[in-house]
Amino acid sequence: MADSVAIQGDQPAVKTPPPKKGKSKNKTEKELSDGLNTMLVIDKEGGDAPTAAGSQKMVLKNPKGTRDFDQKQMAIREKVFRTIIDCFEMHGAETIDTPVFELKETLTNKYGEDSKLIYDLADQGGEILSLRYDLTVPFARYLAMNKISNIKRYHIGKVYRRDQPSTARGRFREFFQCDFDIAGQYDCMLSDAECLLILVQILQKLDIGKFSVKVNHRQVLDAMMEVCGVEKDKFRTICSSIDKLDKTPWDEVRAEMVGQKGLDPAVADRIQTYVVMKSQGDANAFIDQLRNDPLLSKSPTGLEALDQMRQLMSLCGCYGISEFVSFDLSLARGLDYYTGTIFEATLQGEGNAAESVGSIAGGGRYDDLVGSFDPKVSRSGKIPCVGVSVGIERIFAVMEAKLLKEKEKVRTTKTQVYVASAQKNLMEERAKLCRDLYLAGIKTEQSFKMNPKMLDQLQYCESYGIPFALVLGESEIQNKVVKLRDITTRAEELIPRDSLIETIRRKLQETQ
Amino acid sequence: MADSVAIQGDQPAVKTPPPKKGKSKNKTEKELSDGLNTMLVIDKEGGDAPTAAGSQKMVLKNPKGTRDFDQKQMAIREKVFRTIIDCFEMHGAETIDTPVFELKETLTNKYGEDSKLIYDLADQGGEILSLRYDLTVPFARYLAMNKISNIKRYHIGKVYRRDQPSTARGRFREFFQCDFDIAGQYDCMLSDAECLLILVQILQKLDIGKFSVKVNHRQVLDAMMEVCGVEKDKFRTICSSIDKLDKTPWDEVRAEMVGQKGLDPAVADRIQTYVVMKSQGDANAFIDQLRNDPLLSKSPTGLEALDQMRQLMSLCGCYGISEFVSFDLSLARGLDYYTGTIFEATLQGEGNAAESVGSIAGGGRYDDLVGSFDPKVSRSGKIPCVGVSVGIERIFAVMEAKLLKEKEKVRTTKTQVYVASAQKNLMEERAKLCRDLYLAGIKTEQSFKMNPKMLDQLQYCESYGIPFALVLGESEIQNKVVKLRDITTRAEELIPRDSLIETIRRKLQETQ
Repeated sequence: MADSVAIQGDQPAVKTPPPKKGKSKNKTEKELSDGLNTMLVIDKEGGDAPTAAGSQKMVLKNPKGTRDFDQKQMAIREKVFRTIIDCFEMHGAETIDTPVFELKETLTNKYGEDSKLIYDLADQGGEILSLRYDLTVPFARYLAMNKISNIKRYHIGKVYRRDQPSTARGRFREFFQCDFDIAGQYDCMLSDAECLLILVQILQKLDIGKFSVKVNHRQVLDAMMEVCGVEKDKFRTICSSIDKLDKTPWDEVRAEMVGQKGLDPAVADRIQTYVVMKSQGDANAFIDQLRNDPLLSKSPTGLEALDQMRQLMSLCGCYGISEFVSFDLSLARGLDYYTGTIFEATLQGEGNAAESVGSIAGGGRYDDLVGSFDPKVSRSGKIPCVGVSVGIERIFAVMEAKLLKEKEKVRTTKTQVYVASAQKNLMEERAKLCRDLYLAGIKTEQSFKMNPKMLDQLQYCESYGIPFALVLGESEIQNKVVKLRDITTRAEELIPRDSLIETIRRKLQETQ
Repeated sequence: MADSVAIQGDQPAVKTPPPKKGKSKNKTEKELSDGLNTMLVIDKEGGDAPTAAGSQKMVLKNPKGTRDFDQKQMAIREKVFRTIIDCFEMHGAETIDTPVFELKETLTNKYGEDSKLIYDLADQGGEILSLRYDLTVPFARYLAMNKISNIKRYHIGKVYRRDQPSTARGRFREFFQCDFDIAGQYDCMLSDAECLLILVQILQKLDIGKFSVKVNHRQVLDAMMEVCGVEKDKFRTICSSIDKLDKTPWDEVRAEMVGQKGLDPAVADRIQTYVVMKSQGDANAFIDQLRNDPLLSKSPTGLEALDQMRQLMSLCGCYGISEFVSFDLSLARGLDYYTGTIFEATLQGEGNAAESVGSIAGGGRYDDLVGSFDPKVSRSGKIPCVGVSVGIERIFAVMEAKLLKEKEKVRTTKTQVYVASAQKNLMEERAKLCRDLYLAGIKTEQSFKMNPKMLDQLQYCESYGIPFALVLGESEIQNKVVKLRDITTRAEELIPRDSLIETIRRKLQETQ
């Protein structure tokens, strides 16, 4: 027989459970793996397709900042996605998809300083393209292109940024974003509140620990900076500094504003009196306090924003999520395209409740983005949008660590029954039994070896968490019975072939 | 109030159902859409972020050969994926994921002439990267990199080819592949048969019409060419010609082989006697005929392959799929990296049973690919693989056409209950009712307008297929009841607020 079906006596018939990266399964592989991490430089043999004639060094690695997902990671990922998508579906969100690249000009001038992090495609004689940097700009392009004025959509997809990757910090160059956005002209804060509600529900259902959501408003920040005396052309850069307050102490932030950005120290001190302010329980009282503030009360746009915030916090109360949401004047969020409410969710550290381990979701209102693609897109020249983006990579990492800690076994398959041979020359009998099980809708596997060893087959069931095995043997076949083995208890019983499907179904239901 | 919440009296509170591309919803949009298809050239207004100061022409389109998926297309796509993944899970397949780009050298010399169709990323000072061309080479790289010798995995993901796109033919530059592959050294044809079984089950479950699967074997083709007298260095190119027989008549193919590729006409004539041969029902008899063929019987590798084919066809019998599978000597399949069995599934046209509308899946055995990445990957220097790839784009197109024809309404959301206001100033009451429904796990929506119109709300329910509405009004609130409206029958009844959840659950179950 040809090589591809040559017998290799000691090659296990069972699938090797996914090896940990870098660890090897037998002595020969160990010799090879010494000294290797993710890099493996091989002399590629010349010869027939698929390789070119002659020798070539081959590097086996992922591009910098990217990674494969193995089976266990995929099982976790699917669980996380399912939980999140269930929440979106609870709220009637639809979904769309866009290509992984856009015309470069679509992405131009959308990301400020971060534009240098965009991956470009090579000029190969056609259109000039770039990989999408987020899902929001493609969304705005989609709305403008299709003249859609109202939509409530979620979108889960990978985005690309030529950042400095850091596996420790869960920062990759290719990573998932999970966005929920509402586009449409509405006359109250229900859509902004919807984003907060969905965010809280998602974080609760994921059960990844204590979290809190801060909200603020672009117009409140602008009003604050105006009344404190910040020059208008410094608004953005001062906001960037304020944005660092979640990770950096005030003194350092102040030093940056005054020392590097030329802000009047008195102005910085005024700013400090505001950015420490946050609602503690009673949002209404806090908003009253802000409304009555001698400086803020002078700003009409600021007061207008406070009215919106009052309605927003009140809706949070109606939705039963007030305990998770605080109005916090230190929240700034980059602000490139936000025009109204902004929000950010952070996981609390295990110890000190005030110590956060970083943000896991963020968003806000961005009313001008779609209109920037097409000012004629609606009568008002704009399609207002509000949305939230969940940082899935951070959540994956938390879930992986959690499952590891709880030693919880994650199944990577859903197989219910394994069809095994107890003796040689039963390949066709096994195949026919599998056929019957598939016809009955039972998830079934068998070895791909002609004469697999019993021990290998049972070990396979144990590694993969398969609950039952059906063991075929000559005498059972003659007596028209099949041996049913409970993999967990190791109990065995003989089942008549006629009532096999019925019996298995019943046993599977019992173990649910 | 700020622009974002300005009241626009005649803007519908309800989400506009997804507009057909190119069609507009009101007069202003119609004026704009005249003369536009997917291209929209706009003067971008200067101003604050997110746009640059000054004016720029903005093109709103997808890159050539790519497309967005709207909600309806996503609903179809998710249905198709779910069906396919259910089949994979029935067979205990695990899944993995790989990045959208690889190091360029990983993809080099893998695709023969088609290598010119690979998308490269720009040299931005780091590694030289290319977008993945298929899922098979990344799979082989993954196995070699992680020293995995056995795995049964599926992978659904987008791949990228700078081909000549054709929407009519469902040929895109960015498109999904859906692959199932088994890697491992096995001593019989069970893994090859598994691919055929899964393929048939998927096509049956998708219910897209009559289909057939052709199988052949690289060694049979090679033996055939050898015994017919084809020069060894012409094997590949003659195979490419044979590969065209599914679309091109023999005379044209012969002309290409003799006229363009310099094949001896007598050799071409001998080839013809073989490529018309296929099993018609009794595969064993057919294989006996081939074994006894005066020319073929002279080839040891050919006879070896025929033994494998006999076992394969016998297993198809055990699996109950013989009626869909024929051994067909005209199947050639590009053959860049196939080393053993090859297969292809085609949909039959509605009229003439012999007229196919094109291939929808293909695959085969490719034992040398992983070893080409790392000759030391196993004792034998190779990890044998066999797999099948389903052409999802073609299946999407067939499903879309089918649903259109059957006028079947595809829901894009799963909302069960819509909470409506009958009068003004009930925003907070609506929010609180939504909260109760979410806590009870009921999929719920409401308008984002403060005072939505009843007609708009009910029309929304009808467009989105939402089965029930709960209508709030002042008197109902005071009497602690809620009006439950069955959207389909338009029947209404008053339900006590206390037993609301229970009642809704019961009604939802009744409509299952």
